[in-house]
Amino acid sequence: MKKICTVIGSRANYSSIKSAMRAIQAHPDLELQLVCVASALLDRYGQVVNLIERDGFKVDEKLHILVEGETPATMVKSTGMGLIELSSVFDRLEPDVVITVGDRFETMATTLAAAYMNIPVAHTMGGEVSGTIDESIRHAVTKFAHIHFPASRDAAERILKLGELPEMVFRVGCPRIDLVADILKEDENGRDKDIFALGVGSSIDLTKPFAIVSQHPVTTEYGEGERQITATLKAVRKCNLPAVVLWPNADAGSEDIARGIRKWREHGSAEEMHFFKNLPIDTYVRLMRRAACLIGNSSSGIREGAFIGTPVVNIGSRQTARERGDNVIDAAHEEGAIADAIMQQKAHGRYQMQDIYGDGTAGVKIADVLAGLGAVEVQKLITY
Amino acid sequence: MKKICTVIGSRANYSSIKSAMRAIQAHPDLELQLVCVASALLDRYGQVVNLIERDGFKVDEKLHILVEGETPATMVKSTGMGLIELSSVFDRLEPDVVITVGDRFETMATTLAAAYMNIPVAHTMGGEVSGTIDESIRHAVTKFAHIHFPASRDAAERILKLGELPEMVFRVGCPRIDLVADILKEDENGRDKDIFALGVGSSIDLTKPFAIVSQHPVTTEYGEGERQITATLKAVRKCNLPAVVLWPNADAGSEDIARGIRKWREHGSAEEMHFFKNLPIDTYVRLMRRAACLIGNSSSGIREGAFIGTPVVNIGSRQTARERGDNVIDAAHEEGAIADAIMQQKAHGRYQMQDIYGDGTAGVKIADVLAGLGAVEVQKLITY
Amino acid sequence: MKKICTVIGSRANYSSIKSAMRAIQAHPDLELQLVCVASALLDRYGQVVNLIERDGFKVDEKLHILVEGETPATMVKSTGMGLIELSSVFDRLEPDVVITVGDRFETMATTLAAAYMNIPVAHTMGGEVSGTIDESIRHAVTKFAHIHFPASRDAAERILKLGELPEMVFRVGCPRIDLVADILKEDENGRDKDIFALGVGSSIDLTKPFAIVSQHPVTTEYGEGERQITATLKAVRKCNLPAVVLWPNADAGSEDIARGIRKWREHGSAEEMHFFKNLPIDTYVRLMRRAACLIGNSSSGIREGAFIGTPVVNIGSRQTARERGDNVIDAAHEEGAIADAIMQQKAHGRYQMQDIYGDGTAGVKIADVLAGLGAVEVQKLITY
Amino acid sequence: MKKICTVIGSRANYSSIKSAMRAIQAHPDLELQLVCVASALLDRYGQVVNLIERDGFKVDEKLHILVEGETPATMVKSTGMGLIELSSVFDRLEPDVVITVGDRFETMATTLAAAYMNIPVAHTMGGEVSGTIDESIRHAVTKFAHIHFPASRDAAERILKLGELPEMVFRVGCPRIDLVADILKEDENGRDKDIFALGVGSSIDLTKPFAIVSQHPVTTEYGEGERQITATLKAVRKCNLPAVVLWPNADAGSEDIARGIRKWREHGSAEEMHFFKNLPIDTYVRLMRRAACLIGNSSSGIREGAFIGTPVVNIGSRQTARERGDNVIDAAHEEGAIADAIMQQKAHGRYQMQDIYGDGTAGVKIADVLAGLGAVEVQKLITY
Repeated sequence: MKKICTVIGSRANYSSIKSAMRAIQAHPDLELQLVCVASALLDRYGQVVNLIERDGFKVDEKLHILVEGETPATMVKSTGMGLIELSSVFDRLEPDVVITVGDRFETMATTLAAAYMNIPVAHTMGGEVSGTIDESIRHAVTKFAHIHFPASRDAAERILKLGELPEMVFRVGCPRIDLVADILKEDENGRDKDIFALGVGSSIDLTKPFAIVSQHPVTTEYGEGERQITATLKAVRKCNLPAVVLWPNADAGSEDIARGIRKWREHGSAEEMHFFKNLPIDTYVRLMRRAACLIGNSSSGIREGAFIGTPVVNIGSRQTARERGDNVIDAAHEEGAIADAIMQQKAHGRYQMQDIYGDGTAGVKIADVLAGLGAVEVQKLITY
Repeated sequence: MKKICTVIGSRANYSSIKSAMRAIQAHPDLELQLVCVASALLDRYGQVVNLIERDGFKVDEKLHILVEGETPATMVKSTGMGLIELSSVFDRLEPDVVITVGDRFETMATTLAAAYMNIPVAHTMGGEVSGTIDESIRHAVTKFAHIHFPASRDAAERILKLGELPEMVFRVGCPRIDLVADILKEDENGRDKDIFALGVGSSIDLTKPFAIVSQHPVTTEYGEGERQITATLKAVRKCNLPAVVLWPNADAGSEDIARGIRKWREHGSAEEMHFFKNLPIDTYVRLMRRAACLIGNSSSGIREGAFIGTPVVNIGSRQTARERGDNVIDAAHEEGAIADAIMQQKAHGRYQMQDIYGDGTAGVKIADVLAGLGAVEVQKLITY
Repeated sequence: MKKICTVIGSRANYSSIKSAMRAIQAHPDLELQLVCVASALLDRYGQVVNLIERDGFKVDEKLHILVEGETPATMVKSTGMGLIELSSVFDRLEPDVVITVGDRFETMATTLAAAYMNIPVAHTMGGEVSGTIDESIRHAVTKFAHIHFPASRDAAERILKLGELPEMVFRVGCPRIDLVADILKEDENGRDKDIFALGVGSSIDLTKPFAIVSQHPVTTEYGEGERQITATLKAVRKCNLPAVVLWPNADAGSEDIARGIRKWREHGSAEEMHFFKNLPIDTYVRLMRRAACLIGNSSSGIREGAFIGTPVVNIGSRQTARERGDNVIDAAHEEGAIADAIMQQKAHGRYQMQDIYGDGTAGVKIADVLAGLGAVEVQKLITY
Repeated sequence: MKKICTVIGSRANYSSIKSAMRAIQAHPDLELQLVCVASALLDRYGQVVNLIERDGFKVDEKLHILVEGETPATMVKSTGMGLIELSSVFDRLEPDVVITVGDRFETMATTLAAAYMNIPVAHTMGGEVSGTIDESIRHAVTKFAHIHFPASRDAAERILKLGELPEMVFRVGCPRIDLVADILKEDENGRDKDIFALGVGSSIDLTKPFAIVSQHPVTTEYGEGERQITATLKAVRKCNLPAVVLWPNADAGSEDIARGIRKWREHGSAEEMHFFKNLPIDTYVRLMRRAACLIGNSSSGIREGAFIGTPVVNIGSRQTARERGDNVIDAAHEEGAIADAIMQQKAHGRYQMQDIYGDGTAGVKIADVLAGLGAVEVQKLITY
């Protein structure tokens, strides 16, 4: 049995690897090891670890590594904590391969720890361009990783340009799209009738046009978050669209955006808005299918949006240069520009599906590749 | 005044950046900040920090970050400690640029900390190929760094292939060569007469042919070190060359090599050998000028060796694919192969100088580039 | 100049040592060094560090050491982070004496770091009994500390019983009382007219009877916080007292209490209540002078309460066995019991002042003792 | 099954708890959990962890927490690393009781982590007086611990004076004496004939009078170690006693003593001396039975020495005030004074056995007490 260890640090991480976890668990030659870290353990981010356990996965280790402060310096310290603790965990679990997702600080910690310890690293969502510190992390992770599972053609090519071995680059699509595909196959009847019992704010009539707002901090624009989210919220109100507003993730600067949202609410400007700290992925996908527009800088608009056909207003620099479908209109962080783009998307309506980021079979492909790699082959990867 | 912060983690690090430090200190528009970490602080590695202070530099911070054990896991933990402490130091010192050298774990920690904190990172010795975990670190550091000072043409091209901005890649040569050039200009008279008062073992007659042995652990061949150094020492004895033997550096596996050397000595096989934990760089260079042969896997054979013309027997995988001059013969980790190569080099004698890794002016060029970069230009680097 | 280094980790810490800091700063033979750590740096706890700088103190170091999670395990990790970073800071600042306050995790980290490094430790608020993990910390800190500044007679006796040197135990009173004394001397006119512009909730008429609620987690009753605060809030409502409600501190379990408060608010039960994350100490003292009753488990009810004469309902185990004046009535964590005690205090009205915890001159006494200690004397303390 | 977790950080730690570990393992109601940390994992200190596994114990976690440098600051950092990693381990292993030994930095880390996490702490070797930072640690550990297993009557009384609950103080003797008693029962024939194949230096004729030297750094006399060990070695040579010399432990300052020993050897003064990094405990005990004199500042002279009857010259402050038998003569760190005391002990010969530190049944008693404690009783300990 080949031991495949996955490290999960956030809700988004989990959604991005869940279908591969299922496929690994189901594969006769693979054993799944699971380590939950950072915001995946926190109340403040909805205790993703509990969700993971309810989904039937056994969590081998839970590591609190997030240093409070949400400044760039604390993100560095959190990475340091991750290295200190993950090295002990890898020593104990002795995985044959470590899988890591995307471009977060815990991705970096996971990759660095495994690579130094001569454990082959498999990386999903590498090779993409986004134009932030995340991009440096993502490409640096690629340079340390041994097995690459890019989501798109474009991404695969970029990995090859970085000098990685072509026979170790597998363009499998994004495992998040697997979840989306499954959800879209389900019967929708009555599923979301109680969603506004959670979160705070008004209930929203989902049979009429509404927006989703999902805006995260940009670590290189530290200190700008409050102004940025306020511009977005004003634009939404200007367009008279009721809105589902999602809380930001845990990156440096998240507190700025959270403050912006809190002030917006406290000053009574939040009628026809509903605020969620977290949304179950299936609810989120069904909302994306119905929404008149998804607004913000979440990668989901570009990735899942292409597959679902959701009209998207993508704001600011966070997704710059990410490969995108016809469904995306870009706007700067200005109320006017955002409002114009929203109106344009509202008029257009839903787009054709595009499979730029996968066709719904990524998880199974990942498990098959990992099972198929011979021990000799893998050994060669780490001895160069 | 632009504040340029250098982080030094070892004796080799110091030699590799010293001429740039002098030039930064002397430059009217630059202020030097200095942080000493890891083995640069340790008795066991000759307290490099004291040497630095005696050389007239002011050390702003000393950080003990090395976790004992010399296993891959402790190298990960040491990186973690570096992140935790360096982030506080950068918060306090507020450098405008951080300079980091080469490809060690503290290089990674320095780069990651600065890049996350939106401080531009200048990197020397990037773009080289060596075929070990060091190479992954080196290229990952390149992906995070903003300003590149490669030593050789080959290295500069590799950095460009990794997708870095051409206008930020400055092929200045290696600052270590600056030191070598200075030393070679000095009068040699009587300088090394007492060198064997330090270290342990026999005195060696430097007027007759002798070898230098300098062999370090290869982190991806963890556990092999004792066998490897023993093969080398046997080969040296077989060739009847007296030898100056240097202690290994602090990487994972160093304890294996140290054990090999200790056993060699304790079993009385060490006649006509002298063992140094550290050698002053100038003594080392003068020894390289005279040595019949430098044996092992130190990069100095390939880099400084090209400039000095020292015959080199390069063993094993550590320097694989590093650009090299005519002075290098490769050998596997086998007594016979090593002995053959030694005999060949002994017969050849000194080589012509080659400036593949610089012409002795790298330090001044680095200071000039850093002083010349406008604030706007630098700001652009970190905001993408 | 003797260098006296103070480490501050929270708003309460600051209030507890501020008058001594002023006196040290003003003393001709002393130099103040200041390190701010943990929740003193966080937005979520009102950025106490900014307040400190506005008060005219220079902060030498800011250390983010708080690991998120608010579980007992993360409190341990935060202590670990404190040790790692404070040891570097003490190496750099080279204080002659370190002052530490009370019984928090950062108190432990400060004390342990300094004591191991042979730096004499002065401790304020030692020797008190409170009946929680805080008490173990407090007494363990006493065993490591060299100079003791207990607040009360009772506390001084307990320190002596722990075997400390009688000539190093100085019963100076609590420096917090110094602040209270100063505030009570000030003219009150119009000072608090805008206080309800901050925080959230109804404005409260301070000319009529009102309560203050201040309830913190008890680390050994982890998981009980939500139930406990809810009982308190129900009791307050039952007594028809408008209330100023303070947010809990950052100990393990704080999130439970915060959740209780949030639910209370979200379910619309919060009329005639006003919620503050932080209150300036002077506003707090003036509120304590006027309040019909202070309810919860804050030490301020018992300590400052005795000096001010505030009627207090002290709930649960957190202050068990703390020396107290006539102004305190105890109650269990039950709505009925709490409500009865509140009604009793409301009927009684303000109490006579008692100086159990000091007479307003503690800060000056502390500075004088520290200045007076000879170097030989201090050296003896750390060499036993 | 009650889970009893032992944390072992050094060879001395292991010898001090081994008999209790055996008894816990053998007890039907107890399950042994084992965590090895710090120098117990290091080559440099003889890889105690391998010995432990060869003795048939299963090691649940191995944690590298020792930060290199051997200064007071690195001891603080090592404690910090211990806290960070042990908290995750306790979260995973969920022990019912944690046992910790003595007074080392890892004892402090273990105790602090467990106590904060509401896990009852059992402490062996508490209540003793030694007159160094170790003593502060030991008493502070007592203040955090819940169940006390002092070795001597004197120690038990001191624990009670610190205010601990009398019903939780069990005077069981020292488990090290259990090992000594077992070894003394064994047949000695031929057992030690090859001992000088290990270590370095001359073989010593054990049928003639010889000395054992065992001297450790005193953390509050940092920097004195080299001078101190040199005085001792000179005194031994002056008395013409061949000597078995043991390497120092890993405390701050250990490198100073090691340097003193290395210089002594390198300058050729080491005839008739044999140097061991480690000795198996049974060899050590048999050497103690035969030695004309044990010289240095090891606690073994005082503790095991009393039971075995070994003549001891105890040097300097490290054991000041430790309860002692008739077999001990004290001396200052001066060649003359040490030599005089050695001559006196040589003349006296072996002493009568005394059981001040136990009668050989401590381990079984500890297991019985832990098994007997009811869950309710234990719960009370941690909820005060």
